[in-house]
Amino acid sequence: MELTVYLAGKIHDNWREELKAMAHENGLPLTFVGPMENHDRSDNIGEEIVGKQPNAILKDEMASRINNLRTEVLMKKADVVIALFGEKYKQWNTAMDASAAITLNKPLILIRPESLHHPLKELSNKAQVTVETTEQAIQVLSYIFE
Amino acid sequence: MELTVYLAGKIHDNWREELKAMAHENGLPLTFVGPMENHDRSDNIGEEIVGKQPNAILKDEMASRINNLRTEVLMKKADVVIALFGEKYKQWNTAMDASAAITLNKPLILIRPESLHHPLKELSNKAQVTVETTEQAIQVLSYIFE
Amino acid sequence: MELTVYLAGKIHDNWREELKAMAHENGLPLTFVGPMENHDRSDNIGEEIVGKQPNAILKDEMASRINNLRTEVLMKKADVVIALFGEKYKQWNTAMDASAAITLNKPLILIRPESLHHPLKELSNKAQVTVETTEQAIQVLSYIFE
Amino acid sequence: MELTVYLAGKIHDNWREELKAMAHENGLPLTFVGPMENHDRSDNIGEEIVGKQPNAILKDEMASRINNLRTEVLMKKADVVIALFGEKYKQWNTAMDASAAITLNKPLILIRPESLHHPLKELSNKAQVTVETTEQAIQVLSYIFE
Amino acid sequence: MELTVYLAGKIHDNWREELKAMAHENGLPLTFVGPMENHDRSDNIGEEIVGKQPNAILKDEMASRINNLRTEVLMKKADVVIALFGEKYKQWNTAMDASAAITLNKPLILIRPESLHHPLKELSNKAQVTVETTEQAIQVLSYIFE
Amino acid sequence: MELTVYLAGKIHDNWREELKAMAHENGLPLTFVGPMENHDRSDNIGEEIVGKQPNAILKDEMASRINNLRTEVLMKKADVVIALFGEKYKQWNTAMDASAAITLNKPLILIRPESLHHPLKELSNKAQVTVETTEQAIQVLSYIFE
Amino acid sequence: MELTVYLAGKIHDNWREELKAMAHENGLPLTFVGPMENHDRSDNIGEEIVGKQPNAILKDEMASRINNLRTEVLMKKADVVIALFGEKYKQWNTAMDASAAITLNKPLILIRPESLHHPLKELSNKAQVTVETTEQAIQVLSYIFE
Amino acid sequence: MELTVYLAGKIHDNWREELKAMAHENGLPLTFVGPMENHDRSDNIGEEIVGKQPNAILKDEMASRINNLRTEVLMKKADVVIALFGEKYKQWNTAMDASAAITLNKPLILIRPESLHHPLKELSNKAQVTVETTEQAIQVLSYIFE
Repeated sequence: MELTVYLAGKIHDNWREELKAMAHENGLPLTFVGPMENHDRSDNIGEEIVGKQPNAILKDEMASRINNLRTEVLMKKADVVIALFGEKYKQWNTAMDASAAITLNKPLILIRPESLHHPLKELSNKAQVTVETTEQAIQVLSYIFE
Repeated sequence: MELTVYLAGKIHDNWREELKAMAHENGLPLTFVGPMENHDRSDNIGEEIVGKQPNAILKDEMASRINNLRTEVLMKKADVVIALFGEKYKQWNTAMDASAAITLNKPLILIRPESLHHPLKELSNKAQVTVETTEQAIQVLSYIFE
Repeated sequence: MELTVYLAGKIHDNWREELKAMAHENGLPLTFVGPMENHDRSDNIGEEIVGKQPNAILKDEMASRINNLRTEVLMKKADVVIALFGEKYKQWNTAMDASAAITLNKPLILIRPESLHHPLKELSNKAQVTVETTEQAIQVLSYIFE
Repeated sequence: MELTVYLAGKIHDNWREELKAMAHENGLPLTFVGPMENHDRSDNIGEEIVGKQPNAILKDEMASRINNLRTEVLMKKADVVIALFGEKYKQWNTAMDASAAITLNKPLILIRPESLHHPLKELSNKAQVTVETTEQAIQVLSYIFE
Repeated sequence: MELTVYLAGKIHDNWREELKAMAHENGLPLTFVGPMENHDRSDNIGEEIVGKQPNAILKDEMASRINNLRTEVLMKKADVVIALFGEKYKQWNTAMDASAAITLNKPLILIRPESLHHPLKELSNKAQVTVETTEQAIQVLSYIFE
Repeated sequence: MELTVYLAGKIHDNWREELKAMAHENGLPLTFVGPMENHDRSDNIGEEIVGKQPNAILKDEMASRINNLRTEVLMKKADVVIALFGEKYKQWNTAMDASAAITLNKPLILIRPESLHHPLKELSNKAQVTVETTEQAIQVLSYIFE
Repeated sequence: MELTVYLAGKIHDNWREELKAMAHENGLPLTFVGPMENHDRSDNIGEEIVGKQPNAILKDEMASRINNLRTEVLMKKADVVIALFGEKYKQWNTAMDASAAITLNKPLILIRPESLHHPLKELSNKAQVTVETTEQAIQVLSYIFE
Repeated sequence: MELTVYLAGKIHDNWREELKAMAHENGLPLTFVGPMENHDRSDNIGEEIVGKQPNAILKDEMASRINNLRTEVLMKKADVVIALFGEKYKQWNTAMDASAAITLNKPLILIRPESLHHPLKELSNKAQVTVETTEQAIQVLSYIFE
């Protein structure tokens, strides 16, 4: 049995690579998918495909339609979704990906530092499991295969 | 025909009262519901009902279960959901309420200052309508009854 | 037992008034809802609420978001949907309303002149009933109450 | 990961072949399905299988049942749907295929010339992404695999 | 609390009147709906509304579309469905109404003479309750209000 | 706004009466529904309606079909479900009612003595809120109306 | 692309073998599943597994539970369902299989002799396609692969 | 055709091994999945991953979140669910797994000793098939492949 895991969340450090490496070391039969990790490409994809937009809001609207399509196609392939929140940024699109997972009845593992427990309490309550580190998330996934 | 509107979002100023007053002035047959607006009561409701919890995370977990139950019952009664984002705070529970509305197939009107267009672009794309002021949201609701 | 009927379709003649008059004459307990029938207001509603848009496409995008919200709220209240096609115009939004009715599992009555049978054959096949006149549509609705 | 794409829309020029060739050149792991492209066969399939019908409307009814079955089976296999509108014809079955995609929760890419933006504004608003050329649609699909 | 009950099944004797009378005698707050009980009108409704059809099959097709619309609208209003099978006739539309109830997640009470237990065994297994007389069906409904 | 509450669980003491009295004292606009509370009638309802069954298992099968129909009709009317577990008995039908509530997307409040926390941990995790007394359950319901 | 087809209907002649042979001759990539074709085994399966039942109705109840489980598992694997009605027998389980297909959103091809058009008119209206022979059903399936 | 079977129920004897051996002997193409069978690991998994919890209830809460995630992922892969009840223990998580299967529209085979028929009558009524031994459950599965 193979499982596909969607990795939602911040795209500014290499947590996805660490998590993939741990999965590999543990021999877990997991395939990982996720959002565009090149931040500039993610912001510019609308204009790159359909051309210059009249203003910044419309540039964002065009990009978000394409990013949302990408997420929707890939998340539907997923058996489990992991969403990681960090200390910085508003991360509302991470919250949206997390909620889209819940919408699509995909089990959600939330990773967040303990310091964020208060603002994330409602989301944490809707997640299946909340942990603090990528190591713990891998242990949860590993447990499925025992 | 009467409509019920759930008002998600910040609970630190009186935007809900303004919006209700405008609806009343325009004679719109709207009933409004929403989250607990007393911030302390919202944070403490878990301990107030089931007693002192071992730590702050568990206090939050207990409160969020009861707040989520309240939201779920009331939002199911709603025909339309309005979610308002302000400049301050992380507002992840507002994002969750907005996404719960989408989950439940309730049309969503997003109110946010133009300055927040970038971090909210994915959520805005999933909303039915995005506007900047409570006046504009009332105009959208009013248009349904013309 | 009262039924609510959504009247989708062209907004350039008074077929809705004729149909409502026939329902009234026959004493049928029907409430009718439908799209904005003032064509200019329907086209301009986006700019009227959120202000001048950069170009015609964006003006249309803003208007269609608000028109779609109106349709979604009202159609959810409907027990039956009637969609009327005429000889003129592309009427793709009528086709969209008809398909939205099917999406929402609302029984659909299609009214179209016989001359349009070929281009509408797929839609007609998905409708519950296809007729040619508003009189016939009223007879179908009347039959429910016999 | 392979994706299946349903190509809805006009069957009078070779846009499907162009799109497939571009997918092949870019090495995208896509499988394409779509409606019967032989227009006469599509119109006559009812009579070819069950025999001569009493009149043109019934010939169309029989054909549309079989065409709708074909579309339903193939679209359920699709991960993404592309619907292309051209300048000519009413194309209501293209609108139906587009709306069926939305009904089945399949992400929809709409291709239409800018000249059609006004009559297609409601459908465009419900599509995940709207572009003007097949090249742009391929770029959107390609972005999913980056 | 009031309940609405859809009465599917044969239209050749007065079992519906008996059942309504028993409900009235027991003071049960029930509203009853059901199919057209005038057999000729049910068979002819298609031609009566849209005119003479080319042959008997097409006359039936037109009538069944309108009868199915009537059933769909009324059954959606029902909290419980009762389907009664008798000794005579094929009664496949009764079977269809029974299965439509199951499709719509409406609890189904099946009434059939013991002599029919073998051919109805699969349907009986899918029904919530199977009884032999209208008296027993009323007792089941009465039990809900105790 | 009125809410309907289904009261699942043991039928051997008067916890339902206590809970209703508290709701009345607090002026909460709640309507309560629930299972047959007369244990013998609940066990015998099958034989009372359709007559003596061949053995105890079949007597139970007939009764459970009718009890399940009653529960299904009433629970669909509910906005919230409360399930109470006590120290005695296996209470698997309480567990079934609780799970049926989850199935039907009804928010679930679980009441259980702390001593049962271990065997009920999976069910507690799926409930929206878990409390220990009927007083606490009333406080949760009361909070919805503040 | 391979498709799985469930073959519902009478089990007293070899229409399934004819249909499979035609599919093989035409090189269609179809896998066929269906009900137990050994009539006695289908009737006795309940007693064969759980032992002698008290009476004929209970023997049937036990068998139908197991037959319905078999059908449910296999039909969920199907992309298309074919239901064949013949002149003899009540065939209510064929009607149930046909309706189960509709319930599960599986496209349904109905095969029936023209002589049965009247009693099957409601079911025919809900089927995607109605034909008279197995040859025609194979042509419909073949058309999907053109 | 291969089927996946989820084995819910007690983890204190080797019934799963017996059942797998019988499936192997009969050459049935079945893959089995199920809950963590190491009772201690199942109870401790929460603390093992996220560390010591403040008290026994919270230890259970954390473990149940991870066990529920495991069950949810694996059960979604299943075509059939078997739930076995024994004489000992409250087995409410078995009841929950059984009800989750019903929730997810998975056919359920219930195995229980005859002595438990009364407390399990409601669950038995909702199961597709109820038997008394693992041998009988294997016969039911085997029948699907005949």
